[in-house]
Amino acid sequence: MPELRKDPVVGRWVIISTERSRRPSDFVQESVKPRGGACPFCAGNEDKTPPEIFAYRPGDTSPNSQGWTLRVVSNKFPALQIEGGLGKEGEGLFDLMNGVGAHEVIIETPLHDGTLATLSTAQVADVMWAFRERILDLRKDPRLEYILIFKNHGEAAGASLEHSHSQLIATPIVPIMVQEELAGSAQYFGYKERCVWCDVIRQERQAGARIILENEAFVALAPFAPRFPFETWILPVAHRSAFEEIENGEVEQLAGLFRELLRRINQVLRDPPFNFIIHTAPLKEGPLEHYHWHLEFMPKLTRVAGFEWGSGFFINPTPPEESARFLRDAGR
Amino acid sequence: MPELRKDPVVGRWVIISTERSRRPSDFVQESVKPRGGACPFCAGNEDKTPPEIFAYRPGDTSPNSQGWTLRVVSNKFPALQIEGGLGKEGEGLFDLMNGVGAHEVIIETPLHDGTLATLSTAQVADVMWAFRERILDLRKDPRLEYILIFKNHGEAAGASLEHSHSQLIATPIVPIMVQEELAGSAQYFGYKERCVWCDVIRQERQAGARIILENEAFVALAPFAPRFPFETWILPVAHRSAFEEIENGEVEQLAGLFRELLRRINQVLRDPPFNFIIHTAPLKEGPLEHYHWHLEFMPKLTRVAGFEWGSGFFINPTPPEESARFLRDAGR
Repeated sequence: MPELRKDPVVGRWVIISTERSRRPSDFVQESVKPRGGACPFCAGNEDKTPPEIFAYRPGDTSPNSQGWTLRVVSNKFPALQIEGGLGKEGEGLFDLMNGVGAHEVIIETPLHDGTLATLSTAQVADVMWAFRERILDLRKDPRLEYILIFKNHGEAAGASLEHSHSQLIATPIVPIMVQEELAGSAQYFGYKERCVWCDVIRQERQAGARIILENEAFVALAPFAPRFPFETWILPVAHRSAFEEIENGEVEQLAGLFRELLRRINQVLRDPPFNFIIHTAPLKEGPLEHYHWHLEFMPKLTRVAGFEWGSGFFINPTPPEESARFLRDAGR
Repeated sequence: MPELRKDPVVGRWVIISTERSRRPSDFVQESVKPRGGACPFCAGNEDKTPPEIFAYRPGDTSPNSQGWTLRVVSNKFPALQIEGGLGKEGEGLFDLMNGVGAHEVIIETPLHDGTLATLSTAQVADVMWAFRERILDLRKDPRLEYILIFKNHGEAAGASLEHSHSQLIATPIVPIMVQEELAGSAQYFGYKERCVWCDVIRQERQAGARIILENEAFVALAPFAPRFPFETWILPVAHRSAFEEIENGEVEQLAGLFRELLRRINQVLRDPPFNFIIHTAPLKEGPLEHYHWHLEFMPKLTRVAGFEWGSGFFINPTPPEESARFLRDAGR
């Protein structure tokens, strides 16, 4: 019998299908293989990108030259532009504003075929530090309300360049998915006086069936009502509403856990395309008791796209208990 | 300068990108061509599908034999099952229920290479009549709350069989996208005492820039804040909250307009994969003053998938005024 499951935060129901149940080997494989060739993100091609905004590089090297281990540059084809005012206006009953914001690219390694799964834990930790640095810098801009950090890995997941990179989009509005999470978690908090994600972590650790990996500071789990096969969330165990509240010792732990998750995903699903998105509190909120930042990781395994987009109704052929078991077993 | 635009019903902001602006010929073409071969939906293969639930066929032919012009059957791999009770329960803080519901396939033509764009208007009207018949039948089941009618056309849009068909999923819950539309439109009605979609139709007809096609009963337009390039909505001009309220003369008009839209889409975008979804009121609501049923049509032209799914934040490289103009001009 298929099951209908409800996400406890946003109230979204998903169908966990049994008739269509799928094991890892049943998914169409569109694996990600580096092709090489002229790449603007490779060491030596620093002049092929917009100027460097931030970098980890030895003190004796100059910006936009070789020697860096991580670089942040503006996206060459930005979705939003940093110059100008918001110019909010109406058009009859419609609302619009100028597309003011930032669109940056975090080049995670100078090596063309490095990935978050093959880089060292220290290098992955540097990626996380770079996210934090950019958030702390951009939040000074009063026009900005939110910072979205995400990665498209593989062409099928929307990546246009294969060299390992993440992206950052800073927006003058709070994305609707975050608004929904804020509203749902505030409602839960109003009733229970507890953070819903803290409650989820507690219950899931006790039950165990959907836990994939954990360490002192972070837990990786398959959510109860996942939209996609092998959807995985990483949450800080201690309550924190914003990513940039992350502390010194925690960054290494996040990097180690995330890297291990990716290695297992690659082992079980043969290097699939994927996306991840960091869900964090809006910039102008102080620390929130009801919101808990987390990273949502989604391999791109199925093509049932437009219908789900259009209805908000998801059919997932892989129960989260099964995906969690595959990923737990991969560690043995 | 890119623009941020807000959907007036659900409050979703989208970026209308200018740096990435794209014309129809810029999209990767993954066009849909019939391949032929053994097909369970073709005339003569009636025994390859579950038994017929409904059909248009001459009076002297018997169910599950040849002679039909349209057939409705259960999906062979249903996402939901018609037997059983809801069995609502909790699992700690989580909620779930049995996957009770219906999952049907509307086989739109006995011919393997017919499509809604090439069938006659009368045949397309029959498809619409079949939708209505199935809704009127299924709404008698007190376990059901909502009926989703949609089509995946082409493999890239999630179709697993190429023979022209639509699908119907009847669910014991109201999908979240519909809940959001109900909430947003109720809020607008509370303030203005008018239906927001009626206001949109009035304003768009006056402005003209986003109108694609219209006849006495229906209008096809590019929405002000579209998530996808060439996204198009078809709305009844007279206020109606549910699809099944459609009247006799209106079905022909809907069929004619939809068929003409598809012809123009195929001309401009070279037979792209697409999805459409009918957004209609929940089954247990009477006629609603604030909700207005409509059909949302989305060609599948871009691959920027996971990020949009995960954030609810869309970047659209084609302004709706441009897509509307291309589709208007295609009619000349």
